Formats: sequence, structure tokens, C-alpha cells
Amino acid sequence: MKLVLRLTIFFFSLTLTAQPNYEQDSVKIRRIFDKALLEGKSYQWLHHLSKKIGHRLSGSEGEKKAVAWGKGALEKLGLDKVWLQPVTVPHWIRGAKEEAHIETKVSKIEVPILALGGSIATPENGIRAEVIEVQSLEEVEELGEKVKGKIVFYNRPMPAEKIETFKAYGATVGLRYSGARVAGKYGAVGAIVRSMNLSIDNHPHTGVMSYGDNPKSQQIPTAAISTNGAETLSELLKYKEASVQFFFKMNCKTLPDAQSYNVIGELKGTEFPDEIIVVGGHLDSWDVGDGSHDDGAGVVQSMEVLRLFKELKIQPKRTIRVVLFANEENGLGGGKEYAKVALEKKEKHIVALESDAGGFTPRGFGFTCNDANYKQVLNWSHLFKPYNLHIFARGGGGADIGPLKKDDNVLLGLRPDSQRYFDYHHTEIDTFDKVNKRELELGAASMAAIIYLFDTYGIK
Amino acid sequence: MKLVLRLTIFFFSLTLTAQPNYEQDSVKIRRIFDKALLEGKSYQWLHHLSKKIGHRLSGSEGEKKAVAWGKGALEKLGLDKVWLQPVTVPHWIRGAKEEAHIETKVSKIEVPILALGGSIATPENGIRAEVIEVQSLEEVEELGEKVKGKIVFYNRPMPAEKIETFKAYGATVGLRYSGARVAGKYGAVGAIVRSMNLSIDNHPHTGVMSYGDNPKSQQIPTAAISTNGAETLSELLKYKEASVQFFFKMNCKTLPDAQSYNVIGELKGTEFPDEIIVVGGHLDSWDVGDGSHDDGAGVVQSMEVLRLFKELKIQPKRTIRVVLFANEENGLGGGKEYAKVALEKKEKHIVALESDAGGFTPRGFGFTCNDANYKQVLNWSHLFKPYNLHIFARGGGGADIGPLKKDDNVLLGLRPDSQRYFDYHHTEIDTFDKVNKRELELGAASMAAIIYLFDTYGIK
Repeated sequence: MKLVLRLTIFFFSLTLTAQPNYEQDSVKIRRIFDKALLEGKSYQWLHHLSKKIGHRLSGSEGEKKAVAWGKGALEKLGLDKVWLQPVTVPHWIRGAKEEAHIETKVSKIEVPILALGGSIATPENGIRAEVIEVQSLEEVEELGEKVKGKIVFYNRPMPAEKIETFKAYGATVGLRYSGARVAGKYGAVGAIVRSMNLSIDNHPHTGVMSYGDNPKSQQIPTAAISTNGAETLSELLKYKEASVQFFFKMNCKTLPDAQSYNVIGELKGTEFPDEIIVVGGHLDSWDVGDGSHDDGAGVVQSMEVLRLFKELKIQPKRTIRVVLFANEENGLGGGKEYAKVALEKKEKHIVALESDAGGFTPRGFGFTCNDANYKQVLNWSHLFKPYNLHIFARGGGGADIGPLKKDDNVLLGLRPDSQRYFDYHHTEIDTFDKVNKRELELGAASMAAIIYLFDTYGIK
Repeated sequence: MKLVLRLTIFFFSLTLTAQPNYEQDSVKIRRIFDKALLEGKSYQWLHHLSKKIGHRLSGSEGEKKAVAWGKGALEKLGLDKVWLQPVTVPHWIRGAKEEAHIETKVSKIEVPILALGGSIATPENGIRAEVIEVQSLEEVEELGEKVKGKIVFYNRPMPAEKIETFKAYGATVGLRYSGARVAGKYGAVGAIVRSMNLSIDNHPHTGVMSYGDNPKSQQIPTAAISTNGAETLSELLKYKEASVQFFFKMNCKTLPDAQSYNVIGELKGTEFPDEIIVVGGHLDSWDVGDGSHDDGAGVVQSMEVLRLFKELKIQPKRTIRVVLFANEENGLGGGKEYAKVALEKKEKHIVALESDAGGFTPRGFGFTCNDANYKQVLNWSHLFKPYNLHIFARGGGGADIGPLKKDDNVLLGLRPDSQRYFDYHHTEIDTFDKVNKRELELGAASMAAIIYLFDTYGIK
């Protein structure tokens, strides 16, 4: 009996330490990819979310429909639990379509603009003023009172020489976020920002902005102008005798906060149910296009992870939770609320994975974690080579999961190919036809594969 | 004097052995990428080739225009030499648009088809016959005389579980190439092939076929049907009482061979002018769409390699030659002629790089070479990581450069992301708007970078 007991303890401890069995893992991962590519559901879900519901900014009717649809779709998967977590969200509306044109001595050239999210409207008859072109917030600070009565035009192109477009975005998006705040401090009457776009085209890109602590008197209307429009405006400004003025008219406003929800579903862990692994994307989108890449793709890929586990009868050891976050675009209310409730309930989140960089071919992951966990994921990287995932970088995660960060857990973000993302981001052309079925499915399978590994081995 | 002589010999031998200076290489490669992304010309060239010239099948007017344009564009670069190399090419024409429909007892469903390149026409009134659905050439061999008088319908989908779509293509394209030959041997009256496409859509994909040694009496008309059409036909064939027949009418024919040209330009090497490095793509395309991905992209990327060398004042040690090959699609006349002339002139081709897999984000290269040269390129792979090129695989090259293969030289092919390629390949939707400027430019820069390394270090 003693020997049997010893052997039992021996084998039990083997289970606990979870020695890597990469051969078995590679078979499981191959099954995950086969299922996603041959019988995937992500693309069908995205078709519904994009084409039947469409865009879904916080507070909008589309958002309400998306929440109901997400809950219903998760319920059909036969998860252990599906629920809605209430979140209070801002409710900004665009109102009637914007108007804008460049006026010179001899002509009037219409240009496409989109109000930035959070902007106030112009007066009813619009604003017409001289334009002062700048490249940075610092330049406005230096100009100071010289911008008074003028429209400040931030015209710094995204740096095309950066290989990863998110870095090019990071280098310029501050102009969109803070341009009106800084220009407003010095008495400018409006702020126009070159769209965050590496292409030269006619699609303005909206996105969130902030007045910071500016008093009402220093809050000025602000919009993104298409890159083509920006090039034209900049060109005309070179000719003094053209006497260029810019006119724009916007009808946006902020309504009282609205009620929304994080949509959550989970598979309960069989061995370590208190260790929670989150996979998610954000259900809200901007109010143009249909938000297929941002972030319909991340939503359906996250749902697909749990569906693949169910379909392949992978019983997770740990609790795996899909979260469709509310209000990422203009407030991050969903991510903050989720983390707040997790803290209140003393839930232990060991891993959180977000997909919010488009539904393109997956290239790898970015990790925010300690050295030991990073070393562990590097040990897994060979399992992803057959699927052409090569990037296992430090840094990354996602806006929604950011508030879950702790010293000893792992946040990670899917890294799809980034070249096309900012062609569509926050525009009327972020639509379903821009998503390739296989690319979307490969992303979902990659996410399921790494979640499978975290579930199998836990974290360090 | 002796010491000076010795030192001279010492430094000279240092130059000859070309010790790796990866620091310098990485600076050069960064400059190549900067130039391609900030002041690239490939996209502008592709715009002209695709939008002003359009498709350019061997023997067509488009092909003639493309040859003249290619020569003119290379001449403007100030290369050391630009010339045309005569190539005799087949001249197959599609004639009036095809017609096809599925007939059942109760309905007539029109379906999109495209004659395969090289096919004969149907009789003037078309062909109407019963359909026999198969998955393979072997199945037809087994059926034998049972296919007599029928239309053989090859309906094997490309295997979606393969991660690289070229492998999925390789697994099924034999049906397109040989389907009519095999069915014709047993008296079938026509062969319809499911399009080589991983999407389910309405775009038939043409491509080359061959009757092999079949006598005229066993040559039957053959076409590709869209994947949607194939699904519909297959579904209807399940119901015996539907009495399905297929009708198709095609007007294609083969005219006498035509005169075409490889378009060639070169930069003469300063140290080893007799060692030739080739970079190329093929100038011809199918006669639908505008051949932007296949292979307009490869053409302009190859031209861009030489332009980047000129612009960056990189004096090559070895002779670098750009070749815009004729007639890749239906005959490979250009590639064969180029290799034949090279052999006659005893030219020493040490390296040949082809881009013919679409203008998508570059993922790496595939190499056909000996172990020593493969080891050398692996030693360079770290230089490409900052640009997210990770694939340095064995195997690969390109159809046009294939005839240049020797035991001691290196053939390589650019490996772009392959997920979207077969959505467009050989269809009316292989058009300019499907190419992303940055992706195209990144490919051109990657090609220039590896050509720079081969020029700097030679081969083993």
C-alpha cells in the first residue's frame, strides 16, 4: 500500500508541475488551426455584427443591439456562464454630417472632415477663419497668442519609414488627442488635424480627443481632415496672395451618460477554477463604417477561442473567460469597470489576451510580463512557427485589459500584420469587405493556441 | 618597400575574402527601406502598368505596350545598359465572352466560367451534356469509358487547412492543368474545373492547361467555374431527379506564335563584372483583370531594386541585372530563352531572385541552393528582423529563373504573405486597388537588401 501511495503522490506531483509535453501540444494546436480554418465561425459572426448591426458607438442603438447579439451568441455556445456587467458610458453624437471647405480669393474647395469624438459643435453657421499650419503641440505653445482667432492646422504626416504602423500612429496621435486643448488655451477658434493615415486619400479618420482641464471658454471644435484635404490645404497656404481661409461646420454634442455592458462568458476550470484567463476585444466602434477591423475582428476571434475549446472538447484546467468590452473608443469604461469588479471580488487574473489591432494575418504576440513568464512564452514560440507566427516581443496587450495589470500576471496582445490597418482605422471604409476570412481565422486559432498553452502550464 | 607590398597584399586579400561587416550592412539596409518607403517609385510604376496598359497576355496588344513601357522606364534610370531580348511566344485568345449555365428539369442557372489558357473552343452552339463529378485525375482513370459523352467536373476544393496557400494551390492545380487531357482520353466532351480559389465567390480563375500528347480527337474544351458555381453544381448533382445538364460555349483559339521580348537592364559590376545577379518578375499576365499582383508587383519591385541602387549611389561589385520576363503564364518562353542565351554567352549567373507571389507584406525568402550558401543566408537573417522578415526557408525561386539553376548558384524567391493571393490570382479582380502601397514597397526594399548582401559577399 505504501508503494501505491508513493506512486500516487509521485504521479500527482508530476501533474502539478506540468512538465512540457510539446509533442502533445503541437497535435492540439494543429487541431485548433484545422477547426478554425475548416469549420470556423468567426467570419460568419463578423458578417452579422458588421452587416446586420453595423457601427456601435457607446450610447448608440447599434451598441445596444451588439450587446444583445453578443450575449445571445455566447449563450448558444453552451458555456458554463454568460452574463452582462453594467458599465456607464459617455454618449457623444455626431449629429448632421459635417461641412468643410477651403476658401481662397478665387475658389472654394470642399474637403472631407470628421468631427473628433468628444468635440463640441461649431456655432450654427460654422466657423470661418485664417489657418495657421503647425507640425507639433510644442510649436503651438511657442506661437502662443499668435494663434488667437485662427484655426490651427496640425499637419504632421505619420512617419512612413516606421515598419510597424502602430509606431507611426503613436508618433502622431497626440496631435489628434490634444491638438484642440493646446490651441484652445491660446485663443484659437478651431483645430483641424491631418488624419492618422499613411495613405493619401479622401477618407477622414475620427478618434477620441480631450479638452483636458480647459475651461469652457477654451474648448474649441476640432475635426480630422482627409490626407488629401490636408495636402491641398498645405499647398494653398504656401501662397500668401491666395488669402486662404478654412470653413467648417459641425453638429456634434455630448448627451448624458448612458448604460452599457461588458458581455462576458466563461468555461469553468476543472483543476484551478480560481485562476482566470481572459480573452477579449471591444464591442463598441466609432460611428462610421461598421468597425469590422476595429474591433469586430477582435470580438469574434475572442468568441471563437471559447467555441474552439468547446468544439474540440478541450476541458480547461483554469477558468477561461471571454470579455466583449464596452466603450474602448471614447472612455475605456468597460476595461476599467471589469478590472474594478475583479478587484472587488478578489478574482485572480493570471493572463489576459486582447485582439484589437485588426483582423489581418497574425504575425505573433506582444507580452507585458515578468522575465520568467517571458522566458516561458519564448519556450513555446517554436510551436507557432508552422503557422508563420514569429513575433514574440516584449510590450503589448490592449487598452481594455490594461487595468488588469499586476506584477505577477501576463498581459498580451495579438500582433496581426499592421500595414493596412491605418488605411481603414476609424473611417467609413472600415467595413466587412476589408477582412479576409482566412486571416481572421488564423488570428482566432493563434489566440486559442496560446490560451491553450497558458491553460495547460499556468504562469510562473 | 617590401613591407608596403606585404601590407598591400594583406589588405587586398581582406577585400577578397569580404569579412562580414554587419554594422555597415544594417545601415545600408535601413537606407534602402527608408528610400523605398519615403520616396519609392514602385507604386507609381504599377499604377501605370495596371491602369494605363492593363492586362497583357503573350501576343496581345497589352503585352507590346508593356514591353515598350518597361524598356522606356528602365532607360530613364540611367543604367549601364538596357536591351530587348527576342522571345517567340504562343498567342492564344479568348474571343467573345464565355457562356455557361446549369440546366435542371425546372430551371436554368447561369454560372461564371473562364476558358483555360490553351483550350480549344466549343462548337459554335456550345456543348450540353450530363455531368460527372470527380475529385481527382485518378478517379477519371478508374471511371474510364464511363465518362464518354459527358462533361467531367473536377470539384476538389483547395485544402484550406494548409497555412501557406501556395501549398494548397500545389495540391489541386494539377486538375486544372491536366483535367481535360485525362478526361479527353476517355471520350469526355468537356472538362469543367473548380477555380483554384480558397474563397467562395463568383470569380472564375483562368490559368494554363495542356492536352499533352492527346491527338486532336481527344482534345476537349475546358474551363474554370467559380467556386460558388461549383458549389451550386455539386449540390444539384445530388438530386438524381433534377436531371442536371451543363451547357457551355467558348470562343477561344490559338493563333500562330508571336514575337515578344524579355526586357533587360543592368548595372555593371565594378570588381567582378562577370558575376551576374538577376532580379526579375514576369511582364505578361492573364487576359482578365490587370495583373497587378500577378505579376505587375514583381515587375515594378524588380525595377525598384535597380533604381534604389542608383538613387543611393550603391556601386555594385557584381553585375546586377533586372529582367522583365516574357510569357511566364502560358509557356515560360521568356525564362527559357534567357537561360539559353546565358548559356550560349557563357555568362556566369551566381544569383537569381524572382518576385512572383503577389505584392503583399514580405515575410521572407525561399532558397534553392547548396548547404554552404544556405548557411550564409541564415547568417544574414538577423539583418531582416527589424523589417519583420522571418522566413528563410529552403526551396523556392520562381518559374522564370528556374532554367538558370546550377549546382553552385543560388535561386531565391520573395515570400510575401500568401493569404489573399488566391482570392485574386488569374481573375478579373486582380487589379491595382488590391495592392497596398506600403506592402509593395516593403517587398521591393527586402529584395534590394538581399541583392545588396549577395553583391557585397558573393556566393560560396
